[in-house]
Amino acid sequence: MDELDRVMHYLAKLPGLGPRSARRAVLHLLRKRETLMHPLADALGAAAEAVRDCSVCGNLDASDPCHICKDESRDGSVICVVEDVGDVWALERAGAFKGRYHVLGGLLSALDGVGPDDLNLDGLISRSGAPEVKEVILAMDATVDGQTTAHYISDRLAGLDISITRLARGVPVGGELDFLDDGTLTQALKARRAL
Amino acid sequence: MDELDRVMHYLAKLPGLGPRSARRAVLHLLRKRETLMHPLADALGAAAEAVRDCSVCGNLDASDPCHICKDESRDGSVICVVEDVGDVWALERAGAFKGRYHVLGGLLSALDGVGPDDLNLDGLISRSGAPEVKEVILAMDATVDGQTTAHYISDRLAGLDISITRLARGVPVGGELDFLDDGTLTQALKARRAL
Repeated sequence: MDELDRVMHYLAKLPGLGPRSARRAVLHLLRKRETLMHPLADALGAAAEAVRDCSVCGNLDASDPCHICKDESRDGSVICVVEDVGDVWALERAGAFKGRYHVLGGLLSALDGVGPDDLNLDGLISRSGAPEVKEVILAMDATVDGQTTAHYISDRLAGLDISITRLARGVPVGGELDFLDDGTLTQALKARRAL
Repeated sequence: MDELDRVMHYLAKLPGLGPRSARRAVLHLLRKRETLMHPLADALGAAAEAVRDCSVCGNLDASDPCHICKDESRDGSVICVVEDVGDVWALERAGAFKGRYHVLGGLLSALDGVGPDDLNLDGLISRSGAPEVKEVILAMDATVDGQTTAHYISDRLAGLDISITRLARGVPVGGELDFLDDGTLTQALKARRAL
Protein backbone atom coordinates (compact mmCIF):
# COMPACT_ATOMS: atom_id res chain seq x y z
CA MET A 1 0.00 0.00 0.00
CA ASP A 2 1.60 3.30 -1.00
CA GLU A 3 1.45 6.62 0.89
CA LEU A 4 -1.74 7.89 -0.74
CA ASP A 5 -3.60 4.60 -0.30
CA ARG A 6 -2.65 4.55 3.39
CA VAL A 7 -4.05 8.06 3.96
CA MET A 8 -7.27 7.15 2.11
CA HIS A 9 -7.54 3.85 3.99
CA TYR A 10 -7.42 5.56 7.38
CA LEU A 11 -9.51 8.61 6.43
CA ALA A 12 -12.27 6.32 5.11
CA LYS A 13 -12.58 4.87 8.64
CA LEU A 14 -13.66 8.19 10.16
CA PRO A 15 -17.37 8.56 10.93
CA GLY A 16 -19.02 10.54 8.14
CA LEU A 17 -16.36 9.70 5.53
CA GLY A 18 -16.46 6.83 3.05
CA PRO A 19 -14.06 5.78 0.27
CA ARG A 20 -15.21 8.48 -2.16
CA SER A 21 -15.15 11.36 0.32
CA ALA A 22 -11.78 10.09 1.60
CA ARG A 23 -10.38 10.38 -1.95
CA ARG A 24 -11.74 13.92 -2.26
CA ALA A 25 -10.26 14.77 1.14
CA VAL A 26 -6.84 13.44 0.12
CA LEU A 27 -6.80 15.57 -3.06
CA HIS A 28 -7.87 18.59 -1.00
CA LEU A 29 -5.10 17.88 1.54
CA LEU A 30 -2.44 17.49 -1.16
CA ARG A 31 -3.41 20.86 -2.63
CA LYS A 32 -2.98 22.46 0.81
CA ARG A 33 0.08 20.67 2.09
CA GLU A 34 1.59 23.50 4.10
CA THR A 35 -1.61 25.04 5.46
CA LEU A 36 -3.61 21.87 6.13
CA MET A 37 -1.91 18.50 5.57
CA HIS A 38 1.26 19.00 7.66
CA PRO A 39 -0.61 20.89 10.43
CA LEU A 40 -3.27 18.17 10.61
CA ALA A 41 -0.62 15.43 10.79
CA ASP A 42 1.20 17.32 13.56
CA ALA A 43 -2.00 18.09 15.47
CA LEU A 44 -3.13 14.45 15.29
CA GLY A 45 0.23 13.19 16.51
CA ALA A 46 0.42 15.76 19.30
CA ALA A 47 -3.15 15.10 20.45
CA ALA A 48 -2.66 11.32 20.37
CA GLU A 49 0.39 11.77 22.62
CA ALA A 50 -0.88 14.49 24.94
CA VAL A 51 -4.57 13.83 25.43
CA ARG A 52 -5.45 11.45 28.26
CA ASP A 53 -8.37 10.55 30.52
CA CYS A 54 -8.75 12.88 33.49
CA SER A 55 -8.20 10.68 36.57
CA VAL A 56 -10.84 12.68 38.49
CA CYS A 57 -13.77 12.96 36.09
CA GLY A 58 -12.91 10.87 33.00
CA ASN A 59 -12.91 13.86 30.62
CA LEU A 60 -10.35 13.89 27.77
CA ASP A 61 -7.76 16.66 28.09
CA ALA A 62 -4.08 17.42 27.58
CA SER A 63 -3.64 17.79 31.35
CA ASP A 64 -4.58 15.49 34.24
CA PRO A 65 -6.63 16.63 36.15
CA CYS A 66 -8.42 18.22 33.19
CA HIS A 67 -8.83 21.98 32.86
CA ILE A 68 -12.39 21.78 34.22
CA CYS A 69 -11.37 19.82 37.34
CA LYS A 70 -8.44 22.22 37.89
CA ASP A 71 -10.55 25.37 37.45
CA GLU A 72 -10.93 26.82 40.97
CA SER A 73 -13.65 29.22 39.81
CA ARG A 74 -16.05 26.36 39.07
CA ASP A 75 -18.62 25.22 41.59
CA GLY A 76 -17.35 22.08 43.33
CA SER A 77 -20.71 21.46 45.01
CA VAL A 78 -22.42 20.20 41.83
CA ILE A 79 -21.36 17.20 39.75
CA CYS A 80 -22.99 16.70 36.35
CA VAL A 81 -22.84 13.01 35.29
CA VAL A 82 -22.76 12.39 31.53
CA GLU A 83 -22.34 9.38 29.28
CA ASP A 84 -19.52 10.62 27.09
CA VAL A 85 -16.93 13.34 26.51
CA GLY A 86 -19.01 14.64 23.60
CA ASP A 87 -21.73 15.47 26.14
CA VAL A 88 -19.26 17.51 28.22
CA TRP A 89 -18.38 19.45 25.07
CA ALA A 90 -22.07 20.00 24.27
CA LEU A 91 -22.82 21.33 27.78
CA GLU A 92 -19.68 23.51 27.75
CA ARG A 93 -20.71 24.99 24.38
CA ALA A 94 -24.11 25.82 25.89
CA GLY A 95 -22.21 27.60 28.69
CA ALA A 96 -25.08 27.03 31.15
CA PHE A 97 -23.23 24.89 33.70
CA LYS A 98 -20.39 26.04 35.95
CA GLY A 99 -19.96 22.96 38.17
CA ARG A 100 -17.87 19.81 37.69
CA TYR A 101 -18.47 16.84 35.41
CA HIS A 102 -18.23 13.08 35.67
CA VAL A 103 -17.93 11.05 32.47
CA LEU A 104 -19.26 7.48 32.71
CA GLY A 105 -17.79 6.30 29.42
CA GLY A 106 -21.01 4.55 28.41
CA LEU A 107 -24.49 3.56 29.57
CA LEU A 108 -25.77 0.40 31.21
CA SER A 109 -27.15 -1.83 28.48
CA ALA A 110 -28.39 -5.38 28.82
CA LEU A 111 -28.49 -5.67 25.04
CA ASP A 112 -24.84 -4.63 24.56
CA GLY A 113 -23.68 -6.44 27.70
CA VAL A 114 -22.55 -3.26 29.48
CA GLY A 115 -22.73 -3.68 33.27
CA PRO A 116 -21.87 -1.38 36.20
CA ASP A 117 -18.25 -2.61 36.24
CA ASP A 118 -17.74 -1.36 32.67
CA LEU A 119 -18.55 2.25 33.64
CA ASN A 120 -16.48 4.86 35.50
CA LEU A 121 -18.74 4.54 38.59
CA ASP A 122 -16.43 4.00 41.58
CA GLY A 123 -14.89 7.44 41.14
CA LEU A 124 -18.36 8.99 41.05
CA ILE A 125 -19.45 7.26 44.29
CA SER A 126 -16.37 8.45 46.19
CA ARG A 127 -16.53 11.97 44.71
CA SER A 128 -20.21 12.25 45.64
CA GLY A 129 -19.38 11.45 49.29
CA ALA A 130 -17.02 14.45 49.62
CA PRO A 131 -18.32 17.06 52.12
CA GLU A 132 -18.46 19.93 49.58
CA VAL A 133 -20.78 18.05 47.19
CA LYS A 134 -24.43 19.07 47.55
CA GLU A 135 -25.94 17.90 44.27
CA VAL A 136 -25.42 15.30 41.55
CA ILE A 137 -27.13 15.98 38.22
CA LEU A 138 -27.78 12.84 36.16
CA ALA A 139 -27.54 14.22 32.62
CA MET A 140 -27.86 11.04 30.60
CA ASP A 141 -29.69 10.72 27.27
CA ALA A 142 -33.48 10.43 27.57
CA THR A 143 -33.30 6.91 26.13
CA VAL A 144 -34.09 3.59 27.82
CA ASP A 145 -30.41 2.90 28.52
CA GLY A 146 -29.84 6.47 29.73
CA GLN A 147 -32.73 6.39 32.16
CA THR A 148 -31.85 2.86 33.37
CA THR A 149 -28.36 4.14 34.12
CA ALA A 150 -29.74 7.22 35.91
CA HIS A 151 -31.97 5.07 38.12
CA TYR A 152 -29.11 2.71 38.91
CA ILE A 153 -26.80 5.60 39.92
CA SER A 154 -29.61 7.22 41.91
CA ASP A 155 -29.98 3.96 43.89
CA ARG A 156 -26.22 3.73 44.49
CA LEU A 157 -26.13 7.32 45.83
CA ALA A 158 -29.32 6.99 47.91
CA GLY A 159 -27.57 6.88 51.32
CA LEU A 160 -25.70 10.18 50.82
CA ASP A 161 -26.96 13.53 52.08
CA ILE A 162 -27.09 15.15 48.62
CA SER A 163 -29.85 16.00 46.21
CA ILE A 164 -29.95 13.92 43.06
CA THR A 165 -31.50 15.68 40.09
CA ARG A 166 -32.07 14.99 36.43
CA LEU A 167 -32.30 17.35 33.45
CA ALA A 168 -35.76 18.83 32.90
CA ARG A 169 -37.93 17.23 30.27
CA GLY A 170 -36.79 19.81 27.78
CA VAL A 171 -34.77 16.93 26.40
CA PRO A 172 -36.98 15.34 23.73
CA VAL A 173 -37.78 11.71 24.56
CA GLY A 174 -35.56 9.40 22.51
CA GLY A 175 -33.22 12.26 21.71
CA GLU A 176 -29.46 12.31 22.36
CA LEU A 177 -27.70 15.05 24.29
CA ASP A 178 -25.03 15.81 21.74
CA PHE A 179 -27.64 16.68 19.11
CA LEU A 180 -29.49 19.35 21.09
CA ASP A 181 -29.24 23.08 20.47
CA ASP A 182 -27.75 25.32 23.18
CA GLY A 183 -31.13 26.85 24.09
CA THR A 184 -32.72 23.49 24.81
CA LEU A 185 -29.72 22.39 26.89
CA THR A 186 -29.85 25.64 28.88
CA GLN A 187 -33.61 25.26 29.52
CA ALA A 188 -33.17 21.65 30.56
CA LEU A 189 -30.38 22.56 33.01
CA LYS A 190 -32.36 25.43 34.55
CA ALA A 191 -35.57 23.38 35.02
CA ARG A 192 -33.90 20.33 36.58
CA ARG A 193 -36.00 18.59 39.28
CA ALA A 194 -35.38 16.25 42.24
CA LEU A 195 -35.48 12.57 41.30
CA MET B 1 -5.88 26.63 21.11
CA ASP B 2 -5.22 23.27 22.76
CA GLU B 3 -4.42 19.95 21.07
CA LEU B 4 -8.01 18.80 20.66
CA ASP B 5 -9.20 22.14 19.28
CA ARG B 6 -6.38 22.11 16.74
CA VAL B 7 -7.33 18.66 15.45
CA MET B 8 -11.00 19.71 15.21
CA HIS B 9 -10.08 22.99 13.53
CA TYR B 10 -8.15 21.25 10.76
CA LEU B 11 -10.52 18.28 10.36
CA ALA B 12 -13.46 20.67 9.94
CA LYS B 13 -11.72 22.10 6.86
CA LEU B 14 -11.88 18.79 4.98
CA PRO B 15 -14.55 18.53 2.26
CA GLY B 16 -17.53 16.65 3.65
CA LEU B 17 -16.75 17.42 7.30
CA GLY B 18 -18.11 20.33 9.35
CA PRO B 19 -17.63 21.30 13.01
CA ARG B 20 -20.03 18.65 14.35
CA SER B 21 -18.67 15.77 12.29
CA ALA B 22 -15.13 16.91 13.12
CA ARG B 23 -15.96 16.60 16.84
CA ARG B 24 -17.36 13.10 16.28
CA ALA B 25 -14.27 12.20 14.27
CA VAL B 26 -11.96 13.40 17.06
CA LEU B 27 -13.77 11.30 19.68
CA HIS B 28 -13.60 8.30 17.32
CA LEU B 29 -9.87 8.90 16.76
CA LEU B 30 -9.14 9.22 20.49
CA ARG B 31 -10.90 5.90 21.13
CA LYS B 32 -8.67 4.25 18.49
CA ARG B 33 -5.36 5.92 19.14
CA GLU B 34 -3.08 3.01 18.29
CA THR B 35 -5.04 1.59 15.37
CA LEU B 36 -6.22 4.81 13.74
CA MET B 37 -5.01 8.14 15.18
CA HIS B 38 -1.24 7.51 15.20
CA PRO B 39 -1.30 5.66 11.84
CA LEU B 40 -3.34 8.46 10.25
CA ALA B 41 -0.95 11.11 11.58
CA ASP B 42 2.04 9.13 10.28
CA ALA B 43 0.40 8.45 6.91
CA LEU B 44 -0.51 12.13 6.46
CA GLY B 45 3.00 13.26 7.32
CA ALA B 46 4.63 10.65 5.08
CA ALA B 47 2.32 11.42 2.16
CA ALA B 48 2.80 15.18 2.53
CA GLU B 49 6.56 14.60 2.33
CA ALA B 50 6.71 11.88 -0.30
CA VAL B 51 3.94 12.64 -2.77
CA ARG B 52 4.86 15.01 -5.61
CA ASP B 53 3.71 15.93 -9.10
CA CYS B 54 4.98 13.57 -11.78
CA SER B 55 7.22 15.71 -14.04
CA VAL B 56 6.01 13.75 -17.08
CA CYS B 57 2.22 13.59 -16.72
CA GLY B 58 1.30 15.71 -13.67
CA ASN B 59 -0.12 12.77 -11.69
CA LEU B 60 0.42 12.71 -7.91
CA ASP B 61 2.65 9.89 -6.74
CA ALA B 62 5.40 9.00 -4.29
CA SER B 63 7.85 8.56 -7.16
CA ASP B 64 8.75 10.83 -10.09
CA PRO B 65 8.07 9.72 -12.81
CA CYS B 66 4.88 8.24 -11.35
CA HIS B 67 4.21 4.49 -11.30
CA ILE B 68 2.02 4.78 -14.40
CA CYS B 69 4.67 6.64 -16.45
CA LYS B 70 7.32 4.14 -15.28
CA ASP B 71 5.21 1.06 -16.09
CA GLU B 72 6.80 -0.45 -19.23
CA SER B 73 3.81 -2.74 -19.75
CA ARG B 74 1.51 0.21 -20.47
CA ASP B 75 0.82 1.36 -24.01
CA GLY B 76 2.93 4.45 -24.74
CA SER B 77 1.11 5.13 -28.01
CA VAL B 78 -2.03 6.50 -26.29
CA ILE B 79 -2.20 9.52 -23.98
CA CYS B 80 -5.42 10.13 -22.05
CA VAL B 81 -5.76 13.82 -21.09
CA VAL B 82 -7.75 14.52 -17.89
CA GLU B 83 -8.55 17.54 -15.79
CA ASP B 84 -7.45 16.28 -12.41
CA VAL B 85 -5.72 13.49 -10.48
CA GLY B 86 -9.12 12.32 -9.24
CA ASP B 87 -9.99 11.52 -12.85
CA VAL B 88 -6.87 9.38 -13.22
CA TRP B 89 -7.94 7.46 -10.11
CA ALA B 90 -11.47 7.04 -11.49
CA LEU B 91 -10.20 5.66 -14.83
CA GLU B 92 -7.69 3.39 -13.06
CA ARG B 93 -10.46 2.02 -10.84
CA ALA B 94 -12.50 1.25 -13.98
CA GLY B 95 -9.42 -0.63 -15.26
CA ALA B 96 -10.42 -0.03 -18.91
CA PHE B 97 -7.38 2.01 -19.99
CA LYS B 98 -3.83 0.73 -20.29
CA GLY B 99 -2.12 3.75 -21.90
CA ARG B 100 -0.53 6.84 -20.34
CA TYR B 101 -2.19 9.87 -18.76
CA HIS B 102 -1.70 13.61 -18.85
CA VAL B 103 -3.16 15.70 -16.00
CA LEU B 104 -4.02 19.29 -16.95
CA GLY B 105 -4.56 20.49 -13.39
CA GLY B 106 -7.76 22.33 -14.32
CA LEU B 107 -9.96 23.41 -17.22
CA LEU B 108 -10.00 26.57 -19.30
CA SER B 109 -12.59 28.89 -17.77
CA ALA B 110 -13.30 32.48 -18.76
CA LEU B 111 -15.47 32.84 -15.66
CA ASP B 112 -12.75 31.70 -13.23
CA GLY B 113 -9.97 33.42 -15.19
CA VAL B 114 -8.16 30.16 -16.06
CA GLY B 115 -6.19 30.53 -19.31
CA PRO B 116 -3.93 28.14 -21.27
CA ASP B 117 -0.86 29.27 -19.29
CA ASP B 118 -2.46 28.07 -16.06
CA LEU B 119 -2.72 24.47 -17.31
CA ASN B 120 -0.06 21.77 -17.73
CA LEU B 121 -0.21 22.11 -21.55
CA ASP B 122 3.39 22.51 -22.76
CA GLY B 123 4.28 19.04 -21.53
CA LEU B 124 1.31 17.59 -23.38
CA ILE B 125 2.26 19.30 -26.68
CA SER B 126 5.83 17.98 -26.55
CA ARG B 127 4.76 14.49 -25.43
CA SER B 128 2.19 14.32 -28.23
CA GLY B 129 4.93 15.01 -30.82
CA ALA B 130 6.97 11.96 -29.78
CA PRO B 131 7.20 9.33 -32.58
CA GLU B 132 5.57 6.51 -30.55
CA VAL B 133 2.38 8.49 -29.84
CA LYS B 134 -0.49 7.57 -32.16
CA GLU B 135 -3.52 8.85 -30.27
CA VAL B 136 -4.50 11.49 -27.73
CA ILE B 137 -7.81 10.92 -25.89
CA LEU B 138 -9.36 14.11 -24.55
CA ALA B 139 -11.19 12.79 -21.47
CA MET B 140 -12.46 16.04 -19.97
CA ASP B 141 -15.82 16.47 -18.22
CA ALA B 142 -18.78 16.86 -20.59
CA THR B 143 -19.32 20.40 -19.27
CA VAL B 144 -18.93 23.71 -21.12
CA ASP B 145 -15.45 24.28 -19.64
CA GLY B 146 -14.42 20.68 -20.33
CA GLN B 147 -15.47 20.79 -23.97
CA THR B 148 -13.96 24.26 -24.47
CA THR B 149 -10.69 22.87 -23.15
CA ALA B 150 -10.95 19.80 -25.40
CA HIS B 151 -11.51 21.96 -28.48
CA TYR B 152 -8.59 24.22 -27.55
CA ILE B 153 -6.23 21.26 -27.12
CA SER B 154 -7.51 19.68 -30.32
CA ASP B 155 -6.61 22.91 -32.20
CA ARG B 156 -3.15 23.02 -30.61
CA LEU B 157 -2.44 19.41 -31.66
CA ALA B 158 -3.93 19.78 -35.16
CA GLY B 159 -0.58 19.78 -37.01
CA LEU B 160 0.57 16.45 -35.59
CA ASP B 161 0.14 13.09 -37.33
CA ILE B 162 -1.96 11.54 -34.53
CA SER B 163 -5.62 10.81 -34.05
CA ILE B 164 -7.37 12.96 -31.50
CA THR B 165 -10.38 11.31 -29.87
CA ARG B 166 -12.86 12.08 -27.15
CA LEU B 167 -14.79 9.81 -24.81
CA ALA B 168 -18.02 8.43 -26.26
CA ARG B 169 -21.22 10.15 -25.28
CA GLY B 170 -21.75 7.59 -22.57
CA VAL B 171 -20.76 10.45 -20.30
CA PRO B 172 -24.01 12.17 -19.31
CA VAL B 173 -24.10 15.82 -20.45
CA GLY B 174 -23.31 18.08 -17.51
CA GLY B 175 -21.89 15.16 -15.51
CA GLU B 176 -18.42 15.02 -14.00
CA LEU B 177 -15.97 12.20 -14.63
CA ASP B 178 -15.21 11.41 -11.03
CA PHE B 179 -18.89 10.69 -10.27
CA LEU B 180 -19.43 8.03 -12.94
CA ASP B 181 -19.67 4.32 -12.28
CA ASP B 182 -17.02 1.98 -13.71
CA GLY B 183 -19.38 0.53 -16.30
CA THR B 184 -20.18 3.93 -17.82
CA LEU B 185 -16.48 4.87 -17.86
CA THR B 186 -15.63 1.58 -19.58
CA GLN B 187 -18.36 2.04 -22.21
CA ALA B 188 -17.28 5.61 -22.86
CA LEU B 189 -13.65 4.56 -23.35
CA LYS B 190 -14.53 1.71 -25.72
CA ALA B 191 -16.86 3.81 -27.91
CA ARG B 192 -14.48 6.78 -28.30
CA ARG B 193 -14.69 8.49 -31.72
CA ALA B 194 -12.43 10.75 -33.83
CA LEU B 195 -12.87 14.46 -33.12
